[in-house]
Amino acid sequence: MEKKFSYAQLLEYVSGIFLRIGSPANQAELAAKALISADLRGIDSHGVARLSGYVRLWEAGRANPNPQMRIIHQTPSTAVVDGDGGLGLTVAQFAMKIAIEKAAQVGTGWVAVQHSNHFGIAGYHAMQALHHDMIGIAMTNASALVAPTFSKERLLGTNPICVAVPAGTEPAFVADFATTTAANGKLEILQRKNLSAPEGWIQDREGSISTDPHELKKGGALLPLGGDREHGSHKGYALGSIVDIFSALLSGANYGPWVPPFPAYVPIPENMPGKGIGHFFGAMRIDAFRPADEFKKNMDHWIRRFRSAKAIDPDRPILIPGDPEREFEKERMAAGIPLLDPVVEDLARLSLKLGLLPLQEMN
Amino acid sequence: MEKKFSYAQLLEYVSGIFLRIGSPANQAELAAKALISADLRGIDSHGVARLSGYVRLWEAGRANPNPQMRIIHQTPSTAVVDGDGGLGLTVAQFAMKIAIEKAAQVGTGWVAVQHSNHFGIAGYHAMQALHHDMIGIAMTNASALVAPTFSKERLLGTNPICVAVPAGTEPAFVADFATTTAANGKLEILQRKNLSAPEGWIQDREGSISTDPHELKKGGALLPLGGDREHGSHKGYALGSIVDIFSALLSGANYGPWVPPFPAYVPIPENMPGKGIGHFFGAMRIDAFRPADEFKKNMDHWIRRFRSAKAIDPDRPILIPGDPEREFEKERMAAGIPLLDPVVEDLARLSLKLGLLPLQEMN
Repeated sequence: MEKKFSYAQLLEYVSGIFLRIGSPANQAELAAKALISADLRGIDSHGVARLSGYVRLWEAGRANPNPQMRIIHQTPSTAVVDGDGGLGLTVAQFAMKIAIEKAAQVGTGWVAVQHSNHFGIAGYHAMQALHHDMIGIAMTNASALVAPTFSKERLLGTNPICVAVPAGTEPAFVADFATTTAANGKLEILQRKNLSAPEGWIQDREGSISTDPHELKKGGALLPLGGDREHGSHKGYALGSIVDIFSALLSGANYGPWVPPFPAYVPIPENMPGKGIGHFFGAMRIDAFRPADEFKKNMDHWIRRFRSAKAIDPDRPILIPGDPEREFEKERMAAGIPLLDPVVEDLARLSLKLGLLPLQEMN
Repeated sequence: MEKKFSYAQLLEYVSGIFLRIGSPANQAELAAKALISADLRGIDSHGVARLSGYVRLWEAGRANPNPQMRIIHQTPSTAVVDGDGGLGLTVAQFAMKIAIEKAAQVGTGWVAVQHSNHFGIAGYHAMQALHHDMIGIAMTNASALVAPTFSKERLLGTNPICVAVPAGTEPAFVADFATTTAANGKLEILQRKNLSAPEGWIQDREGSISTDPHELKKGGALLPLGGDREHGSHKGYALGSIVDIFSALLSGANYGPWVPPFPAYVPIPENMPGKGIGHFFGAMRIDAFRPADEFKKNMDHWIRRFRSAKAIDPDRPILIPGDPEREFEKERMAAGIPLLDPVVEDLARLSLKLGLLPLQEMN
């Protein structure tokens, strides 16, 4: 069961929540836009379903709604940003803007962020570069749910990467993915429906193959992209590690098993080696390499060739990274964003707690 | 059956071959070092086993042993290099050097390369950055052997990526991997031994699951990392696509199904949209983000924590990316590099053809 809400409604509502907990108006709106972009793009697990989680982080003193974000080190093409414990949703936008400005100056810009929190979907941040004829890159570490190849222990987050590439008349190429076989959100869907998971997604606490979607609560782990060694899980493990290193080791944030968790009821790890969670952003100006119109003509050609590849099943055509999310965005911007009843109820409790008007269903 | 050869012997021999086909002395030695690094590091499919293939490319007029490599466009942090049809083994080193120089100047350097050929292993090129306290990145596209998710057609190469990260007292982190479930070299081993491949590595020409390692010769395809949609093959497809775009679309090289093949007997594709094959290199100076000694202390800590994770099977400890290749290098540098008899015979024929002394077995 679900109800539908318009983008404008959700934007006003979510901005109001962030305002209420102390964000300045401009930051509240920026944060709301980043958060709702997940719902728009069909990544429901990362959208308003997490809003009360952000509020609980604030209540626990683990997220700062009005951070004094600043550059603590820089060169012409790089910077490190201290997010001052802010909402990753806004810290990420502050950092990505710097990457874009540096790219405008010297061709590329690369910004590592320490002392931040969860930033929503990587795609929203990487895509900011598209407006400037730049390739955008965004990644973040997250609390440990993933076991490296051969390990019983969880040492990495689902550590997503997004690379967004502008095209000409074709829509942009936007690859946005967790470095695991399956994102945690997909497990949550199986849990709700009481279905078993495919082999290769998770292992139990002893490291044996499992198909129980509740395994994570019992000490099990998500598996790196590839699933097992024979199918290349060491490559998924390497990718997740690269995200961790770029996001946290370059910035001075926490890494590996020390990344603070999103749920405020989970204690933060002991002996943390850094500050908050880490992100990494990049922007590359297309015309720092080639005239942008030549590049875009080739991108259109690339996209059309791949889209027209011979399909195994005529009913499942070849997709370009970003196609499914763009379809969701088009559909939901027009017809409204569906929220499951438990999410709507969660938001109603949140409104009550903060003394705000509840969200009104779309007419 | 195999014979062993010392690194010094192979270096002299391979340099001699490149000299003989017209490479200047300094380029011949650089190319030989890059090629043999594959044998040293245990990636036998990419080493001297391919030497006669490079020579055949030269005979066919498809590789230029004495290229006039040059920068055709640049900004403070970027460059595009025209490889003039040279051996990728040397073109890559020319380009990586530029990336490192730019990083020394402005924090990071990013170089896209057009009009090149196969460059050996990505790891060798990325690792050049380590000597400068920089993170090194190398990737290349290659001729199409891989089917995107849902496609019958092969549109991408195995498109490898390497990211090399310096540490302090621990050895460097070096992740070097094809963006497929299994590299083509692993299939070749199964072919030789007449063993079947695990499910998830290949599909037949109609796109059905296959375990026949000879499937590629019959129009089948390698699969992107993940194997199938349910196990995240769309992520492997996205990764291979990113490598293709960075290597070829940013540089003006060929992409997708138009990348010229390595075997000289395979005709080059018609209507090629670019020049040669493409590579992409990056160098990021650690102290463009943080003091290098702080970073390295954290990297050592990261590496030790991961290496000491609880293993599922006590006999298979958790590895750090780069561990297996480093072990090979240590062992083979000391005890010699084993070459299979068919490779030794191939090299003997090559010596005869070029009027050079044959390779002498190690005492």
